[in-house]
Parts: sequence; structure tokens; C-alpha cells
Amino acid sequence: MCEFNHGAHSHQTLDPAAAEMLEKANRENVQTVWDRFEQQKPQCGFGDLGLCCRNCLQGPCRINPFGEPKTAICGADADLIVARNLLRTIVGGAASHADHSYMAIHCLKEAAEGKAPYPLKGVEKIQSVAAKLGLSTQGKTDNELALEIAHVALADFGSYSDEPMKWLTATVAPELLETWKQLGILPKNPDREIRTAMHQTSMGVDGSPLNLLLSSLKLGLVDGYAGLQMGTDVQDILFGIPYPIKTEANLGVLSPDKVNIVVHGHMPEVSEKIVEWAKKLDNEAIEAGAAGINIAGICCSGNEVLMRQGIPLAGNYLSQELAIITGAVELMVVDVQCFMPSLTKVASCYHTKVVTTTPIGQLPDAEHIPFTPENADMKAQETVRLAIAAYAKRDPAKVQIPTHKSEAWGGFSVETIVETLAKLDPVSPLKPLVDNIIAGNILGAVGVVGCNNVKAIQDQQTVEMVKDLLANNVLVVATGCTAHALAKYGFLSPAGAKKYAGSKLLSVLTAIGEAAGLNEPLPPVLHMGSCVDNSRIGDLLGALAGYLSISIKDLPVAASAPELQHEKAVSIGTWAVALGVMTHVGVVPPVLGSPLVTKVLTSDLEGLTGGKFFVETDPHLAAEGILAHILAKRKALGI
Amino acid sequence: MCEFNHGAHSHQTLDPAAAEMLEKANRENVQTVWDRFEQQKPQCGFGDLGLCCRNCLQGPCRINPFGEPKTAICGADADLIVARNLLRTIVGGAASHADHSYMAIHCLKEAAEGKAPYPLKGVEKIQSVAAKLGLSTQGKTDNELALEIAHVALADFGSYSDEPMKWLTATVAPELLETWKQLGILPKNPDREIRTAMHQTSMGVDGSPLNLLLSSLKLGLVDGYAGLQMGTDVQDILFGIPYPIKTEANLGVLSPDKVNIVVHGHMPEVSEKIVEWAKKLDNEAIEAGAAGINIAGICCSGNEVLMRQGIPLAGNYLSQELAIITGAVELMVVDVQCFMPSLTKVASCYHTKVVTTTPIGQLPDAEHIPFTPENADMKAQETVRLAIAAYAKRDPAKVQIPTHKSEAWGGFSVETIVETLAKLDPVSPLKPLVDNIIAGNILGAVGVVGCNNVKAIQDQQTVEMVKDLLANNVLVVATGCTAHALAKYGFLSPAGAKKYAGSKLLSVLTAIGEAAGLNEPLPPVLHMGSCVDNSRIGDLLGALAGYLSISIKDLPVAASAPELQHEKAVSIGTWAVALGVMTHVGVVPPVLGSPLVTKVLTSDLEGLTGGKFFVETDPHLAAEGILAHILAKRKALGI
Repeated sequence: MCEFNHGAHSHQTLDPAAAEMLEKANRENVQTVWDRFEQQKPQCGFGDLGLCCRNCLQGPCRINPFGEPKTAICGADADLIVARNLLRTIVGGAASHADHSYMAIHCLKEAAEGKAPYPLKGVEKIQSVAAKLGLSTQGKTDNELALEIAHVALADFGSYSDEPMKWLTATVAPELLETWKQLGILPKNPDREIRTAMHQTSMGVDGSPLNLLLSSLKLGLVDGYAGLQMGTDVQDILFGIPYPIKTEANLGVLSPDKVNIVVHGHMPEVSEKIVEWAKKLDNEAIEAGAAGINIAGICCSGNEVLMRQGIPLAGNYLSQELAIITGAVELMVVDVQCFMPSLTKVASCYHTKVVTTTPIGQLPDAEHIPFTPENADMKAQETVRLAIAAYAKRDPAKVQIPTHKSEAWGGFSVETIVETLAKLDPVSPLKPLVDNIIAGNILGAVGVVGCNNVKAIQDQQTVEMVKDLLANNVLVVATGCTAHALAKYGFLSPAGAKKYAGSKLLSVLTAIGEAAGLNEPLPPVLHMGSCVDNSRIGDLLGALAGYLSISIKDLPVAASAPELQHEKAVSIGTWAVALGVMTHVGVVPPVLGSPLVTKVLTSDLEGLTGGKFFVETDPHLAAEGILAHILAKRKALGI
Repeated sequence: MCEFNHGAHSHQTLDPAAAEMLEKANRENVQTVWDRFEQQKPQCGFGDLGLCCRNCLQGPCRINPFGEPKTAICGADADLIVARNLLRTIVGGAASHADHSYMAIHCLKEAAEGKAPYPLKGVEKIQSVAAKLGLSTQGKTDNELALEIAHVALADFGSYSDEPMKWLTATVAPELLETWKQLGILPKNPDREIRTAMHQTSMGVDGSPLNLLLSSLKLGLVDGYAGLQMGTDVQDILFGIPYPIKTEANLGVLSPDKVNIVVHGHMPEVSEKIVEWAKKLDNEAIEAGAAGINIAGICCSGNEVLMRQGIPLAGNYLSQELAIITGAVELMVVDVQCFMPSLTKVASCYHTKVVTTTPIGQLPDAEHIPFTPENADMKAQETVRLAIAAYAKRDPAKVQIPTHKSEAWGGFSVETIVETLAKLDPVSPLKPLVDNIIAGNILGAVGVVGCNNVKAIQDQQTVEMVKDLLANNVLVVATGCTAHALAKYGFLSPAGAKKYAGSKLLSVLTAIGEAAGLNEPLPPVLHMGSCVDNSRIGDLLGALAGYLSISIKDLPVAASAPELQHEKAVSIGTWAVALGVMTHVGVVPPVLGSPLVTKVLTSDLEGLTGGKFFVETDPHLAAEGILAHILAKRKALGI
């Protein structure tokens, strides 16, 4: 298990802490994701181009982009195969987010009914979501209203009418709704759309690549509203609307003398309870000889507990194994999504316990502690105590915690941003922002989101691109593993404003920071949360467009996923292009085998929704393309 | 388009009509599925073994069964990749059937509300389904009760409770329910299960192959009850319970002087209306110079209109292009599933119109006539008139209709079988059947179901295996394209009993035939319908087990899909093994890359449900294995 021989490591990560841990892995013969990537090379060119089909037992079929065969056994050509594969990828992403959201709704329902130990912390959010959904609030307690909200959400999942999802129609501007209606992509019951898309892509059903691409847009909307929007709304009600909070990021946040618990995955139902019980059981850790309990986060679980609890970030997707390789992690608790099946193998080289918590996310060699909303207190205690017990087994000879860590601010919900801006203009909070955009002090805004992907040097594409954007006075908001990446290099701190922001942007950030009483500039990159929280970016865009009485597609903005990896990133990106946002991807998705699909996604789509994909693996060229897009949008607006 | 150069054809089909058409295709340079199969060789070994993963953008990853790498980039090993791929395959099948069923429910609802022109023909089925679901029938009209049934079905799709699907619990014996409950595989809302399974198989969620295999069983049950059972019940209510009906099968059923319309796909909502309007517009065809209108069926649309309308079968899956190559088909109308995207290309070499009818099943070069339950009369007329108009363009020089056709009986619903047996024993209709099984006159029974697959010589594996089974006095029931296959060679006719059945079986078939007033033996293979109608086989097994107070797993029976092709076949097979039935597959599914998954599916599963998969590509060895299984089950029963 721990006897893997590494080759030479170079150009794997921009992160010095990660590089240090890769050296350690090398010395200790522990295999990491980068080693497995080397072993996988060369990757299959057919799959890479999207030209491999395994949707029936006559296959696998492959299309040769340079000759014969041009058709699969059933007659499907490259365009059809690529379009079908893309839709299934987006279904995978949308289903993941919708399922995440569904679990949160279940928790909200149990909590509101008093069956689960989650006091509702987002009281303002109950009111705002109820208002959005058109629910009468009179004479209702918070819990009653929250329960009603849970039922509206469940009704979307239970609907068999042909009406579009209520959560979508309650959120989106009428003009955008009309565009989507005309395109026939308004989703009904999200589960029904997922089921139908799986049917549509099965052997011998849809033969039309364009029809499949429209369904891809529809499933992008399923992600956007049954996943992101609904998930974020419900999680804010359960755990509170995030407010700006300061913490630190990178492996240096692990403690040399405390019990280190790393929360990893996506569901705050689990990670919030671990944080709560780590505090409550701190004494037990001290009794066990540790200096207490230290929690750190990986991936979106990290973002969730950062933005509401100030928990530090240990690292993003590609650093998950490296956290264990420090030798200082007693326990890593995972729930769903983005945790590598390799974790238990890496953990077996150290004293680290890996705990799985959900019925659908198990690992054969992990401890399975099945959390439910009802039993969460008991299971969280059990998990924390397992970590405390593991502390005794920590091998000091194997401990090496990198010193690297950076100050990082998180928790920039739309509510917070508006509240902060209201200090400049209480009557019309968006006015100062918009005025600065019009004046060119803020050239535009870009949401930089998504994952790490071992195909790209860890964090590099993100960091290099964001540097260029900030230097050109573009405001950046970030979520997910990209937010972790930017956190590590100081982009989420006031100091980062001085270091990275162009002078005009810096003056705006300084003015807002002063008005907010920070005595420092705002960070040049605003951490808006986890991947599910991308809906916050959508809300902000909707608010700006609404304020200006224009469409989102006309705003001088863009989205970017420089290092995307998960199917969820593809479905989120598809939602963004449906919104009308040009969306950059820095890793090439498996679509290039179809000239038609590539052309629709990167060009024709603009005529339908105003959005399109922009594929560019070079971060500087990516920034250049995004800047050109922003300038074109400014020009069209006459600013 | 029509300029494809064929290589030598050999060993492609057992069917002389198909062979004749392949010769014609050769002469006319028309490309068929067999040509495309040749072009695809060699097929990818990684995909073939299930060892290719494309579930995230770090991949594609491949596991080398003979060396390194043994793990994907994320750390997933062969077992995990194969199990994940298998579950997604089963989701594809279950979603296809559930969506089919959902469309039928929608049609039933519209019909019962008087909004759609479908008089409810299955009045007895309304009563029996209502009784099964525990609905009070008193004082309700047929339409009211049917509407209530539609709402119970929709409630399963809309449920967010943790209770299992009502349609399942209302159908299945308590003991089987308990087995599935213990295994944790009882499905809740079927759409929820589909969504969750897509989530479970996305990157970084489930790392446990065994957990994924249990979910595969669960999704098999989703297919079995939200697809097959619900679909069949609802279609019987709409279109009537099938009763035995005589017709003919093979390309020889196409008419040299009538307008030939081929119905292809799966949804009787479309094909029934085509049949209805073809009769009504027969005069228009005569006015256009034809001798009238002739309808013939391909795949399960063929089975649906055979068993209720006596429409002849033109051919199964691999013959769909060949029907067009006769040059005598004016129009092929398709709805969903199993129609090749190549159809329009083949049709472009002739005068044939291809019509698509559903929003999710379009072909770029076809005529799209969007059917809904409400507009079905209008759209069916439009379609039939398009066929009549095309007749003038038929090129006599290109017409060559094979003479081959065989007598075939269809329509053996459980209701029919029981009614027929009641002529022998009105009090206890199953007694004569069971007595004959106990006496060894019927050694056992096998459901032979599924598709064609170009990897196997068309029909051969089915025919050779069934010959062996019948010769050994095993009663065979069939559905889907397998029923077509057996129809072509006379297995579905009384003459087939004399030709193929062992002497003991023949005497039983003769006795039943005489009691039923046929003056001939029953066919040795009973055609029980379309693929969705596999639930009828499940019902029959349930009835037999109930009569004997034993479990389905203890019956001397088996299932077989000798030439399976579609994801649906895999999900149906998984339902069968969950029922406790040993299920033979004659094409190797992409699981051999995982010794663990292969072992669980073909062996360990038996300890859980009593069922297992039996993989054997040689039809005689397959029959041998099935016979051994039946004998072992007989021995265990002491008979």
C-alpha cells in the first residue's frame, strides 16, 4: 500500500505546501493522484474527443476523426455521440446537485418539524425565500414558514404538471423566462427531466444532436434551480446567511498539537455538526493529551464551514490526499462528491481514520457512520471521539505540516454584499457598484469557479488568469475549489487588493472597505461560497441586470472554470450559458470530436441565450478573451 | 449515401429473408448495421470489459487487466469502475422504461378525463388493477376508476416519503418484499432513485462496489415496477388485455400492392392510432392506386399491435433497415427506443418516409409529426396520408419482398393463460399446469426475452437454445425481439409444437389446445408481448409460486436474453435476478474486467435473492446450463 515508487515530480502544483507534501509522499512511497495520472498516460483519444459510445451492448463504438468509421454500429455519427455523451455528463452533474439539494430539504423539513437537532439559523432567509415564493408570512412562526418552504421545494420534485419548476419561475426575470420558454428548455419536475434525459440518450431514441443540446441546456437549468438555487436557499435557512469572516487557508492550518479533523465533501448537515461537537468535546481531546481539537476543511465542506463558522481551509480537491500525508490528520470525514476512493489507501500509510457518512458514499476500508438529520448529534460525537482516540496513534516521526497559510476572507453572500454597499448608498445599494462599472473603475466582473483537475498544474491556471483580470480592474468573485486556490495566494485578503488589483479597482475596494469600517480595502476576490453557492453569483447578476433594466447577457461579465473536473462543473457551466453568460473553461471538455457540437457550444448558442462557452487552456489567453468580451459588452452598452 | 461497398457477407443472420435483403443491400450499395459492425472491429477491449471510466474530466481512465495501471486517476479500481458503469447502464434502462410508463400514464389520465381520443378498452383490467391497489370501486364509473389509478401511478412518481413504491408493494408477495427490505433495495419514488443513482455514480461519491451492486438491484426493481408492471397495467387499461390472436411474421408480410406502413418503437399510443387510421383511410389508398393499406410492425411496437390487433410482424431489431431495403415500405413511423439513427440514411436510398413522433426521439432528416394524446387522431391521419402520398413514388424496379413468412400466435397475457387453463380446471386453473410440472410432463419454464445484437448471428442463439429447451420438455414464453425471432421460425404456431416440443410437452400442449377448442396444440412458445410486458412473466411466476406456497426462487424456471443489446435488457435482467430467477445472457455484458462484480452477479447474488446471472454465448451450452438449473430446482422441490 505504502510502497509506491514515484517518478520525478515537476510541474504538478503551484502550491508550495502541496509541493512539500509531494516530496514527503515521494520519500514515504505513498501514491498520489499525480502518480496515477502519469500511469494513465496516454489517455484514450477517442474518449478525450467524446467519440466513444457505450450506451448499448453492441458497442463500445468509436468514431475515427481522421477516417473510417464515421458511424457507430447503430448509425450514430460523431455529432450524435458527442451530444449524447454531453447530455449524460450534464445529467450526472444536475442529478448530483439536485440530490444534494433534496437531502438539505429533507433536513430542513425534519428540523422545522422539530425532529432533527438543527435550529433554523437563517431567519431572514426564511422571510426572503417565502417572499420570493409568494407565500403569505402572516401569523406564521419561523418553523411553520420554513416547513412550508420545504413543502414547496418537495412539490417541485413531486410535480407532474407541465408547468415549469416553481423555484425557477420564482427566481428568474420574466424576460429570461420567456427566452427559455421559446427554446422549450424550461424544466418541469427536475427528477422527471433527469429521467427523460437518460431515456433520450439511450440507444435508439434521440438522433438529433441539436435536440440533445437543447436538453443539455434544460438539464443545466435543472442544476441551476433544483440544485444550486434551492440548495443554497435551504442551507442558508438551516445554517444562516453567510457574513464576512476571516480565516486562513492551506495545509499550514493543521495543528501540530491538536486533534486535526478534516471535513471533506459537500453537505453542511454533516460538517456543521462536526464543528459543533468538536467544540463541545474539546475537553476530551485535552484529556487525551492534545491541545484541543482543530477542524479544517477540504473542497466544499470546507467552504461551507468557512463561510459560516470561520473554519480554516486545508486545501482544495488535489490536496485531499496531501492533507493525510502530513501525518497530522486524525480523521477525515466525508459525505458526498469529490472525495477520492484512494483516501483509505493513503490513510492506511498513516494513523488517519476515514469516516463515510451517507448511504450512497461509502468506501470499503473506511469507518461508516451513517448520519441522518435525526441522529446527527449522536453520530457527530461518535466521529469526533474516533478522532480523539486516533490522536494517540499519531506517529511524530511521520508528521510534517507545511508552514504555508494565508489570510482569507469568506462569506460574501449577496445579502452581505448589498449590506456593505448600503453603507455607501443606503437608498440604492447597487448604485455605487454600477456607477463604478459605468465609470470604468470596475471594468467588469468575472465569477471564477470550479475544481482542480490533475490535467492542469494545481491552481496555476486559476491564479495566472485572475492576476491578469484584477490587474485590468476586473472584480472577481469565486466559489468552490477555485476559491480555495485563490485563498492560498492571498487573493481573498485585503492585502491581496494592494498586491493584485489594478489602481482603479483598488480605489473602489478601498472606498468600500473604508465605508464598511474595515480600515482596509475589500479583498479583490470575493469568496461567495461552495459550488452549490454559484446561485449567489446568479442572484447578483440578476440584481445588477434588474437594477439597470437590461438582460444578464448584456452585462460586462463572464464566468470561468479554469480547472474544472467534475460533471457538476459542466452542468453549472451550462446553466451559466443559459443565463446568457460567456463561460470560459480551462480544461477541454470531451466535445471536440463533433464540429457541430463544438460550434453550437462556442458560437451559435450566443444567438439563442446570449451565452456561450469559451475554451482556452492558456490562462493569459483566457484572461485576454474574457477582457475582450467584457470590453465588447461595455461598448454595446455605450460605456 | 447509397454508395457503400460491402465486403463479403457470411454468418450474419439465420433468417433467409434477412439474408436475401442483405444481398439486395449489397447490390444496391446500401450500408447496414452489419457493415458498420465490421467497420467497428476491433472493438475497444477496455470498454468491452467495463474498464473505461469517463465520469469526470480528468479521464478518460482505463484499467489494464494484465498490468498497470490498476487504478484510475481518482483511485477507483476495476471493481469500482465496472460497478459504477453497470449501475449507470441499469439507470439508462430503468429510466427508459419508467419514462415509457409515464407517457402511458399521461395518456391514461387524459383519456379518462375525456381529453384524449382513447376509449378505455381494458375494462376488466381497470377492475383488477384497482383491486390490486386497494381502491374502492363502488359507485365509480370505469373512467373515474381509471383516473384514480392514473393518480396512484403519478403519486408513486411524486412521492417524497420513504415508503417503497405502492405499485411494487401492491404487486409483490410479502416474503419477497421482506427479502428486498432486508437488502435495503426497496425503491421509493422511482425518479428519486434514478436521480440518486446518477449522483452515487458521479466522481467521488460511492467507492463501494458492493453498495453500487445493491443499488443496481434497486434500479432493476425500479424498471420492474415503475417501468414494466406499471406500463403494462396502464397499457392494458388503455388498449385492452391481449387475447390469443393469429398473424404472420417476417418480411414476407409486406404487401406488393398495398401502401406499407411499418410501425417501429415501443408506444402503443402511437401505433394503435396508426392502425386505427390506416383502416379508416383505406379508401384513400385505393383511390391513390394501391390495393389498400398494410401495416406491419418492427420491435415492440410490432408486438403491441400484434397482440391486440393481429397486425403482422415485419421483423426484429436487426431487420429494421432491411424492411426499408425491400423498396416496398412507404413509411416507417417511430416513437422511442431501438430505432437506429441510420434509418433516414437507408430510407434516402428508396422512396420511404421516416416519421418521428415524440419530442425526445427525433432524427434530423425525418419528418417530425409530434403526437400527443390529445392530437393523436389528427397526427395519425397526417402520418397515414403521408404514406399514401409516398406510394406514387415507389420504384417497382427497386421492390423485392422476400416470400418468407410464418404463422404466429400472440397475445398470451396471464389473463388469457389462466382463462385457457380454466377450461381444464375451472376451480383451480393453475392446477393442470402445476400438476404437469410436478409429473415432469413440463420439465420447467423459461422466459426467453430481449433483443437482437449484431455481435450474435441474428436469431441463431435464440433459436438454437429454444430448440434444445423445447426438446427437453421445457415450456418457453417469449417477449420482445426474441418473440419476433421465434415467430419467424414457426415456434409461435401449433405446427411448431409438433416440430419442436418434446413428446411429453407436446401431449400437454395438445391437451390444453383441445380443451381450449383449438383442435390443435398450443404453440410451444407463448408470445407474452413486448419488452415492457415482461411483467406478465413476473406475474405468472408470482401466481405459480403463490399457488404452491413457495418462493419464485424455488420454481424450476429461468430467464434468458440470448441476444441482448439495449440498456433496458440489462435492467430487466437485474429485476429478474432480484425476483430470484436465474437469468442467462448470451452476449457478455461489460463486467468481466471486475472479478468481484462478475462473481457477485454470477454467484454470490444467489445467496441474497436466489437469482443470479448465467453468461454463456454458446446456445447449446446455455440450454444445458438452464436445464441443469431446472433439474436442480426440481430436485430441491423433491419432484
